[in-house]
Amino acid sequence: MTFSEPELRTFTEEIFLAMGCSNAHAHLAADVLLRADMRGIDSHGVARLSGYVRLWEKKRINTTPDIKIVHETPTTATVDGDAGLGLVVAPFAMQVAMEKAAQYGSGWVAIRNSNHFGIAGYHALLAVEKDMIGYTMTNASPLVAPTFSNERMLGTNPICYAFPAGKYPPVVVDMATSAAANGKLEIAQRAGKPVPEGWIQDKSGNFTTDPHALKTGGSLLPLGSDREHGSHKGFGLSATVDILSAVLSGANYGPWVPPFVSFLDPPDDPVGLGIGHFLGAMRVDGFRPIDEFKANMDNWIHRFKSAQPINANQPVIIPGEPELEAEIERKKNGIPLVNAVVKDLNVLAERFGIEKLM
Amino acid sequence: MTFSEPELRTFTEEIFLAMGCSNAHAHLAADVLLRADMRGIDSHGVARLSGYVRLWEKKRINTTPDIKIVHETPTTATVDGDAGLGLVVAPFAMQVAMEKAAQYGSGWVAIRNSNHFGIAGYHALLAVEKDMIGYTMTNASPLVAPTFSNERMLGTNPICYAFPAGKYPPVVVDMATSAAANGKLEIAQRAGKPVPEGWIQDKSGNFTTDPHALKTGGSLLPLGSDREHGSHKGFGLSATVDILSAVLSGANYGPWVPPFVSFLDPPDDPVGLGIGHFLGAMRVDGFRPIDEFKANMDNWIHRFKSAQPINANQPVIIPGEPELEAEIERKKNGIPLVNAVVKDLNVLAERFGIEKLM
Repeated sequence: MTFSEPELRTFTEEIFLAMGCSNAHAHLAADVLLRADMRGIDSHGVARLSGYVRLWEKKRINTTPDIKIVHETPTTATVDGDAGLGLVVAPFAMQVAMEKAAQYGSGWVAIRNSNHFGIAGYHALLAVEKDMIGYTMTNASPLVAPTFSNERMLGTNPICYAFPAGKYPPVVVDMATSAAANGKLEIAQRAGKPVPEGWIQDKSGNFTTDPHALKTGGSLLPLGSDREHGSHKGFGLSATVDILSAVLSGANYGPWVPPFVSFLDPPDDPVGLGIGHFLGAMRVDGFRPIDEFKANMDNWIHRFKSAQPINANQPVIIPGEPELEAEIERKKNGIPLVNAVVKDLNVLAERFGIEKLM
Repeated sequence: MTFSEPELRTFTEEIFLAMGCSNAHAHLAADVLLRADMRGIDSHGVARLSGYVRLWEKKRINTTPDIKIVHETPTTATVDGDAGLGLVVAPFAMQVAMEKAAQYGSGWVAIRNSNHFGIAGYHALLAVEKDMIGYTMTNASPLVAPTFSNERMLGTNPICYAFPAGKYPPVVVDMATSAAANGKLEIAQRAGKPVPEGWIQDKSGNFTTDPHALKTGGSLLPLGSDREHGSHKGFGLSATVDILSAVLSGANYGPWVPPFVSFLDPPDDPVGLGIGHFLGAMRVDGFRPIDEFKANMDNWIHRFKSAQPINANQPVIIPGEPELEAEIERKKNGIPLVNAVVKDLNVLAERFGIEKLM
């Protein structure tokens, strides 16, 4: 079934309002989720709404948070999200980073006591709108094992860099630091199809193609898959995300990160508050005039798009292109949702007494 | 053959002095190279000295550079290296970043018109000594093809993050963004051994295990190796390094990066000046008290070292541990050099009339 963006947006806002969010927060949280759906990242869009509701029901999400700066210098800050939705905590923190960058050239904010913040790209693109470079990351529920281990110690810990360009759209590198994002696994699970070797290991630490292996003690593998192909690099990147997001901010790190799902309780020996993010912004014109930078970005993009392809009908893809194409297509044709998601959303509608999707 | 650190250091300083470097620059450049040898990163140590000499002979390295800031805000700067050794340009720029960080919380420097800067970890660890987080990267001669391409468009473009800890040594993530660093390829070439599938492709874009495939039009693969295993992420990271190091600074990017080897001429249509780096420093106490951070880093390290191992005798390796172990071992036993490197260094000794290694 396909829905228009405004229809899903209104629906989502109403759910957040029913949970007790302010108008501004409901609007913002819906904007972050809808942007994911529009950009084709279905795993991070309205499909996740019922997950937020269930965490709120368990009192693990605070819909009237007092989000505030608890420590700062001219260009750095730590923000406490007061257990709020990451969907509103992260834009608050990004605003702080951008104000610091506007004044001093750059701004960097570590965030503790937050929750899932949606797609990393949303927050990084806020900076791009101001001709800044955006840099965002978050830690997440432990699903990934470090190289040489079969214990789930890290989340899929995404990193995003976004760069403004001139006539071309921005370059947006938005990537999980695991070999495969959890969303891809869920697609294979629904389709009942095996996954490629190198995505998951079973509980003994052997490669498996069973997409359900996480349910029997398996774990996701870091980018690089095994030591020989550089999984220690994927682990190093994921560790970096964990340290910047949580050790620096005072959030939970590693295996102590609270699970996103309401049926798993957070560890009872927390090492910090909630989950952590790390966001930053740098003014491009802190380094060189913006027009020069954009002209060179355009040349960079043009040259990489023209790189010799292995197959003539599959040119090089510039980071961010697929998401932009989805955005254009879905603006025209609407957002497709699988039946399970529609059903799930209509259960929420019923629970809160708002109009169902049809 | 094995040499003591002071012996190789004196030798290296004398070579740089003979090339016309100032005392201070010769001392610094030797320090960067020797640190690589001590840390077991042989491909970036004195083995590279003759390469610098040959580039200097071709007038592609300026040993009396006027390194200066050409653009800045309180926390950002662009440095022009005046075609100097990256080994001295990068420490200059890191000093700028650290001074800005000391005053404003963070400092970020893009560098153009530079050359190979040695190991990324050297520069990042300068920040750690001041209880800052160090962040360093550089672009490099094109050897890596983007996903879906068989054209060499990017260098092995390393990224390094270094974090101070308390009772444990710093965590240092220092990694090429390709599946394998060029140094590992050289080891296989010397040994005449095949490399694992996923490191290189031949000129048609097929995986090959031939370590010499770069000589016949092949290319290195990004971290992730192929699309299915996330090579687009390795490409995205490498693109990020290229953009921050060169598009932001005004250096050459992508296929325009000048080759490190003197027998290949730089492209005759440069898009910038020399090669580029990007360096940064953030004060830890810009986010939380340093003692709290260090205590949590120690707990992070302890927990990850204790992660359940797949094989009991291979525990999880914390990023930076192998390099530190090499440093301890080589301090005791000296630096081993293969015969070809010793011969190469003694050719330099003869050329400059300084005492040979024996």
